[in-house]
Amino acid sequence: MGDRTQLWNDLAAQIAVDSLRATTAAGSGHPTSSMSSAHLLAVLFADHLRTDVGDPRNPANDRFVMSKGHAAPALYATLKAIGAIDDGTLLTLRRMGSPIQGHPAPVPELPWIDVASGSLGQGLAVGLGMALAMRMDGAPGTAWVLLGDSEMAEGSVWEAMEAAAFHEVGNLTAVLDLNRLGQRGPTMHGWQGDVFRDRAEAFGWTAIQVDGHDVDAIDAAYRAALADDRPTIVIARTEKGHGVSFLADQEGWHGKAVPADRLEAAIAELGGARDLRVTPHSPSDWKPMQVGELRAAPAPTYDGPVATRKAFGDALAWLAGHRPDLVVLDGEVGNSTYTEDVARVAPERFVQLYIAEQCMIGVQTGLQALGKTAWAASFGAFLTRAYDQIRMAVISRADLRLCGSHAGVSIGEDGPSQMAVEDLAMFRALDGSTVLYPADGTSTVKLVAAMCDHPGVTYLRTTREATFSLYGADEAFPIGGSKTLAEGGEDDVTLIGAGVTLHTCMGAAELLGADGITARVIDAYSVKPIDAPTVRRALDDTGAIVVVEDHRVEGGLGAAVLEALAATGPLAGRVIQLGVHDLPGSGAPEELRAWAGIDEDAIVAAAREAVAG
Amino acid sequence: MGDRTQLWNDLAAQIAVDSLRATTAAGSGHPTSSMSSAHLLAVLFADHLRTDVGDPRNPANDRFVMSKGHAAPALYATLKAIGAIDDGTLLTLRRMGSPIQGHPAPVPELPWIDVASGSLGQGLAVGLGMALAMRMDGAPGTAWVLLGDSEMAEGSVWEAMEAAAFHEVGNLTAVLDLNRLGQRGPTMHGWQGDVFRDRAEAFGWTAIQVDGHDVDAIDAAYRAALADDRPTIVIARTEKGHGVSFLADQEGWHGKAVPADRLEAAIAELGGARDLRVTPHSPSDWKPMQVGELRAAPAPTYDGPVATRKAFGDALAWLAGHRPDLVVLDGEVGNSTYTEDVARVAPERFVQLYIAEQCMIGVQTGLQALGKTAWAASFGAFLTRAYDQIRMAVISRADLRLCGSHAGVSIGEDGPSQMAVEDLAMFRALDGSTVLYPADGTSTVKLVAAMCDHPGVTYLRTTREATFSLYGADEAFPIGGSKTLAEGGEDDVTLIGAGVTLHTCMGAAELLGADGITARVIDAYSVKPIDAPTVRRALDDTGAIVVVEDHRVEGGLGAAVLEALAATGPLAGRVIQLGVHDLPGSGAPEELRAWAGIDEDAIVAAAREAVAG
Repeated sequence: MGDRTQLWNDLAAQIAVDSLRATTAAGSGHPTSSMSSAHLLAVLFADHLRTDVGDPRNPANDRFVMSKGHAAPALYATLKAIGAIDDGTLLTLRRMGSPIQGHPAPVPELPWIDVASGSLGQGLAVGLGMALAMRMDGAPGTAWVLLGDSEMAEGSVWEAMEAAAFHEVGNLTAVLDLNRLGQRGPTMHGWQGDVFRDRAEAFGWTAIQVDGHDVDAIDAAYRAALADDRPTIVIARTEKGHGVSFLADQEGWHGKAVPADRLEAAIAELGGARDLRVTPHSPSDWKPMQVGELRAAPAPTYDGPVATRKAFGDALAWLAGHRPDLVVLDGEVGNSTYTEDVARVAPERFVQLYIAEQCMIGVQTGLQALGKTAWAASFGAFLTRAYDQIRMAVISRADLRLCGSHAGVSIGEDGPSQMAVEDLAMFRALDGSTVLYPADGTSTVKLVAAMCDHPGVTYLRTTREATFSLYGADEAFPIGGSKTLAEGGEDDVTLIGAGVTLHTCMGAAELLGADGITARVIDAYSVKPIDAPTVRRALDDTGAIVVVEDHRVEGGLGAAVLEALAATGPLAGRVIQLGVHDLPGSGAPEELRAWAGIDEDAIVAAAREAVAG
Repeated sequence: MGDRTQLWNDLAAQIAVDSLRATTAAGSGHPTSSMSSAHLLAVLFADHLRTDVGDPRNPANDRFVMSKGHAAPALYATLKAIGAIDDGTLLTLRRMGSPIQGHPAPVPELPWIDVASGSLGQGLAVGLGMALAMRMDGAPGTAWVLLGDSEMAEGSVWEAMEAAAFHEVGNLTAVLDLNRLGQRGPTMHGWQGDVFRDRAEAFGWTAIQVDGHDVDAIDAAYRAALADDRPTIVIARTEKGHGVSFLADQEGWHGKAVPADRLEAAIAELGGARDLRVTPHSPSDWKPMQVGELRAAPAPTYDGPVATRKAFGDALAWLAGHRPDLVVLDGEVGNSTYTEDVARVAPERFVQLYIAEQCMIGVQTGLQALGKTAWAASFGAFLTRAYDQIRMAVISRADLRLCGSHAGVSIGEDGPSQMAVEDLAMFRALDGSTVLYPADGTSTVKLVAAMCDHPGVTYLRTTREATFSLYGADEAFPIGGSKTLAEGGEDDVTLIGAGVTLHTCMGAAELLGADGITARVIDAYSVKPIDAPTVRRALDDTGAIVVVEDHRVEGGLGAAVLEALAATGPLAGRVIQLGVHDLPGSGAPEELRAWAGIDEDAIVAAAREAVAG
């Protein structure tokens, strides 16, 4: 047995032992799913993954994504073996306040973990995004993704397989830990590696099958993967709980720690505890290139009507000329969202992902992990397709810039399948999210620019139809702010709108004014964070608020107003919510707004009711 | 040319012409995507789809799903040709109030359409659900699904391919309209039918390639598909806009109606307008069998603590013994959600779909369309994966019974990737949805039983840990109701909780009582519809409400309370929302509730603040 062979095997045994130790200390976790990966991780980190442990942000580093996040103990054991964390930290697994959680998540203390995992089937798209970022920068690295076999049933994996092959991403290697057992019993295909080989090949990948506990075979497979200029998957036949007789290939041990009284016996079977340290190969001394000339075009401005979706495209194309870090992703709707405007000016930073929204968000998460200011856009309705990926991006502390177009019943004739009417609720509920909904071209441009430098998941909601210009080019639109368009000393009622309903609120205010009711009108372009002081003052001043949204009545702008009022003191007055209450069909935009009760007439009626108290 | 050949070609030309007429009349829509499907639909409806047009609910009928929903005009033109709708209705396409919307949706006037489409990649799983329902019943029908080529990039298609092959569903035929052009230009694979053949075969399907405008070849392919006992895909090479020189295989015509001044020329190229009527082949005279003996076991009851997720499994297993229409779907977490309890008592009505939540919801939509009382369960966090499918089920007017387990930070050590903290907001925002969150075993059982007969999307949220028993077996839990657990004449404050937080509210009430503050406690087990009169009375009586939820503070139970208060009159008093404000990590459940500020101490502090005003 060669020196490296011995080292790899010893390191794998240590990873297995440490996975057992950490989970038994925690009293829960997934030791057996960790043990099946031990040899795969040992060979990878000891001799293939090129990374500077002391400089995890080094752009020349390879990247590793643990897509099968429940095998987190094996990842933490590996981080210990490369000197990133110490044994004391390892034994805090799953405890309150520990950086090493039940599933991997990037916290400040763990800069070696780029993204969160634990919702299955998401890692490959993230790895693809990393590989694309490296290729855009000319960086030398490879993205490695460890997949579990259960998660191969998730369609999102096949979206990423397809996209990686289409984009001819050679610097992406997937490793499939084919351990045959899922959470509740055997997987669909067991150890039939040929099934996955055939599928991978049909999706344009190179596939290599190996015994996942034969370190020399693993080493050879990794070498072959790196030499191959297509994306490559190493399909490794493994045993869950490998190396311990009472765990190996046994059902009933998923997500269970070994009881303390059996731990010693298990460790003994693995050759006892070790304290090996390995240093991964260093990355090359590549440094990012200096950026060349960009196009210092002026910001777009508008005098007349424009659709906010078009202003979004204009703004993004303008910013692409200023910011070399800006990358834009499309899900084959770029001519509707207007991201195609970026494709024209910066085609090298426009990535077409076809109709695969989950893949789009995963790729975006990978791109931003490597420093890109990554944007993705689709119809707002279709971002629901990637809600799990967006939720996981929050746990990844990722900066996702998202645009959802064609909001509300105002899209009209295409009908309800294309209408985003739940998106404000969906995005508001995410931790640290920002939700913006501009009403004209100028505010759209300002908010798109602000989003480029704002952390977390930021969401811009745009409208299909053209809307009138409301603001001059010098107006500022801070996130968390609002605009009061009409205010007097003795306002009777406050109308709060955003996007298309701001315009109907303004029309309603005019109608009310003709009847002697003075209405204050607030543009709540920042739905989250909402401008709570202004909303509170509106209730205190007028005692009557009508909130109008082209969105379901639950959880959207109206809820944001009510939550802000509740958070800022006692409630006194009337708040009426207008929004979508029923299932829309097709129709003209103005017909549908009338049907939903969010047009001028409905606002006037609600305002009268609110003033009456 | 044989008689049928002539008929098929004439019928295809009529479908193309009517698609053009309807979209030009509407001024928008997708005629060219309809024209590529015309021959495929003509041969299918004239000679293969067995259905009684006069009795669309006949359980012996075949089923047709238009997965590429934007080709709706072709579907409506076909419905006209089989006598389901008249030409006048056809020409109301996309108008306000018309049953024929921009994308197919089942409205009462259109019983020939079972499910909505328009969000791509969803139809195959729905067809699979229909095929499974037929097989369970011993019905003779076949489910036919028309797919577009752009939607093959959606991973959800491959989830359904995998599941159909795994379940050996021979009565499912997919037809792929390979027209080469997507919304904004060529698709990824153009006319490379071999790519889809190889993938389909690797996923366990039979694949047949044909010229999609050669009706005899199409007929032969359909015959072969029906004869094959594996799921079969007919890959049909077609032209978008086929039959009209200025449309055929041209870019720039997606989603555009032909201008009125060019309509006549287009129709002339297709041989002019026709008024053919065809009658599909009748289904066999099969009738559903009489149901045999079921197990009339008594409902589960609880004296001591039980996890509501376990009570859910108990209830479902009990109901499976009473209701032969009950079917349960699992996404490989049945030992966590406890749907495995049904697998034990009714394995023939338990369908394992592995880790593919999108497929699970699509199958459920198909099952319920054929009359099954279909349940699906996963971790609440992972239902986010299928939000688009659930949203589309609403437009399908589908009855989905869903359970999301492991709600909130209270799951503890597994960490945030497994915690549902956005699910109440997500489900509340859906039209006609019902959101239930029981706090003990008895209320869980009652609500599960009620859900079986409740229309629309109904969602039950369950908890991982055991909770104390609160209610006797005779207690009723109507949807839309609540329970007031502690009420006095002079209550100082109202505490509203649901699920796990009801228990912390009760503990807090006791602590407050010791300090001379009397707290009313309300179990808001029906989060939507919420018991608005009781909530309103609580504000009127006590002037101070604390709402506590193990969920993000945006859009959940607190928002539901505020929205109910706003909807029922003027606001006067203090409402404080307690919920999750930050990104959780791992920890013990009680540690995480303290961290989130939803434990007894936090409630006591908030109640004091609320009482102070």
